[in-house]
Amino acid sequence: MRATLMYSAGDVRVEHVPDATIVEPTDALVRVVRACICGSDLWPYRDMPPVEGGRSMGHEAIGVVEDVGRDVRRVKAGDFVIMPFAFSDGTCEFCQERLQTSCVHGGFFGSGRVNGAQAEALRIPQADGTLYVLPTPADDALAASLLSLSDVMGTGHHAALAARVAPGKRVAVIGDGAVGLCGVIAAKRLGAEQIIMLGRHADRIALARAFGATGVVGERGEAGAAKVRELTGGFGVHAVLECVGSDTSMATAMAIVRAGGAIGRVGVPHYDAIPAAQPAFYGNVTVSGGPAPVRAYIEDLLPDVLEGRIEPGRVFDRVVGLEQVPAGYRAMDARESVKVMVKP
Amino acid sequence: MRATLMYSAGDVRVEHVPDATIVEPTDALVRVVRACICGSDLWPYRDMPPVEGGRSMGHEAIGVVEDVGRDVRRVKAGDFVIMPFAFSDGTCEFCQERLQTSCVHGGFFGSGRVNGAQAEALRIPQADGTLYVLPTPADDALAASLLSLSDVMGTGHHAALAARVAPGKRVAVIGDGAVGLCGVIAAKRLGAEQIIMLGRHADRIALARAFGATGVVGERGEAGAAKVRELTGGFGVHAVLECVGSDTSMATAMAIVRAGGAIGRVGVPHYDAIPAAQPAFYGNVTVSGGPAPVRAYIEDLLPDVLEGRIEPGRVFDRVVGLEQVPAGYRAMDARESVKVMVKP
Repeated sequence: MRATLMYSAGDVRVEHVPDATIVEPTDALVRVVRACICGSDLWPYRDMPPVEGGRSMGHEAIGVVEDVGRDVRRVKAGDFVIMPFAFSDGTCEFCQERLQTSCVHGGFFGSGRVNGAQAEALRIPQADGTLYVLPTPADDALAASLLSLSDVMGTGHHAALAARVAPGKRVAVIGDGAVGLCGVIAAKRLGAEQIIMLGRHADRIALARAFGATGVVGERGEAGAAKVRELTGGFGVHAVLECVGSDTSMATAMAIVRAGGAIGRVGVPHYDAIPAAQPAFYGNVTVSGGPAPVRAYIEDLLPDVLEGRIEPGRVFDRVVGLEQVPAGYRAMDARESVKVMVKP
Repeated sequence: MRATLMYSAGDVRVEHVPDATIVEPTDALVRVVRACICGSDLWPYRDMPPVEGGRSMGHEAIGVVEDVGRDVRRVKAGDFVIMPFAFSDGTCEFCQERLQTSCVHGGFFGSGRVNGAQAEALRIPQADGTLYVLPTPADDALAASLLSLSDVMGTGHHAALAARVAPGKRVAVIGDGAVGLCGVIAAKRLGAEQIIMLGRHADRIALARAFGATGVVGERGEAGAAKVRELTGGFGVHAVLECVGSDTSMATAMAIVRAGGAIGRVGVPHYDAIPAAQPAFYGNVTVSGGPAPVRAYIEDLLPDVLEGRIEPGRVFDRVVGLEQVPAGYRAMDARESVKVMVKP
């Protein structure tokens, strides 16, 4: 079968690899219907040292189950499934608390231990816990939005929950990538009164507005922070969705959060530390977030997708075949594309 | 009148100063019935550079109103009041959100702008918002517990709320000072299932147990963290009350918090930063807290004090007159006393 391997920064190849198979009795084998390229794939695309044999890429997919191991009970061949970016047993203490990203038997797709989803098929560990069986057959019209539930929509929702978005709150979203755009959807869905997108790409801003952003701030740094404060009566926002993970994005988050407010961070941190005292401590700012337990959120978000109330699939603005995955990385890295869907 | 001034680290004096008076029409003048020395007073006691004329000390008191300015409406002469450590107008957006420590017209007693409470009397800015009028006459038996509502009990409660203590949760309290001990009371009051006190002073541990601690860990650093994990099924606690504010206490908090858990920090940070990535981000750890809006919490906690369900006043283990305040600082600094009450 064909699969995507990254050999070093900028070097992504689609190659013939051994077919994915069942290894553990708790595994499932899934044929990929749609996968995609994640903003977080761009970090190694920019800085990964050479890896011998390449690193298997991709952690988002919807697909059809081809086979299951002998201990799998809840999932069967033919099921149309969402594969969250983390696998999880569904039974441990953390899974029961809906924090599947901390599952004691869990891990991450495309992490080295388990292969990635930018491929024709892949092995799913802990299939009973990991896979969400959809009530619908594979459907082209909904494919993009269903695919978004494997990561970006659930991650945007996690940022909004971590930032304590609620009816009447003022919200800012840092990052106009797919997660930030899904954060806008999540903030609106949770009843935010004001949603300010910090971004400067016309196409992304247009989508943010379509998703419910009530304002846009294109300035960066202190000028951008001053603009957000101006738009919020001088005090900043109750909730910041930090969807980037850079030191400047975290500094901006701290500069625009209102006293007593919260920062929900979902951008993998490429900064070392969070300033301890001002304004975090003296302003009673809450910092929360991390890898989103998207497995838990599928059941919360799916009805809105199936009934058309939210359309997170609109973040995909390009569809490529597996052979064009390297071009997809280039397009996202050059910001020519928000998010690339892969149709193997 | 007599008042306490700190001239530099270790140099605390009780001196005759001009009588406190009404200055603004929104002020009240309060005669101090009880004041006390705070753990946070020990930071300048250990490292304050010389201050010309001295710094007026003390930010916790109960007292009787002697006079009020012409614009004061809710408070009158003769009222028995609790003075929270921060003053606040009671009407701004933040006060309405119960975050009086961020009041737009607020500030802190003993901060330079406003004199401190280790004195015979003091001026109370924004009296209508700041002072909590007690329904009872000045009562010696309850004085200590009422006094604790001006800071330490409210601060321990704030740590517990910021750490999201709730029924069934496993809790650790870092710091066996008065705030940490009040944190134990707060955790028990909020229904914690397990409360582990990290501390090593026999008298404080005994009090922590009396307040509801179910376990004590005396080891420090990684040994202490390992012990906490051992006591909690290997995963750590849902809630950490960080009541110290040093770099080692924050490191311990991060080492013992469970994935998905929260750290409520109320110790004034004497560390620069909070580690961004591991475990804070990958473990979805929430970091929250700051100066406690004790003004908001008085109405929540007072019934439990008046009806004897909680006895936070037991943290006071020494009572001194105003002249003995310098000796009180020495005793607390040497850890001979948990918390010193001042009876002017």
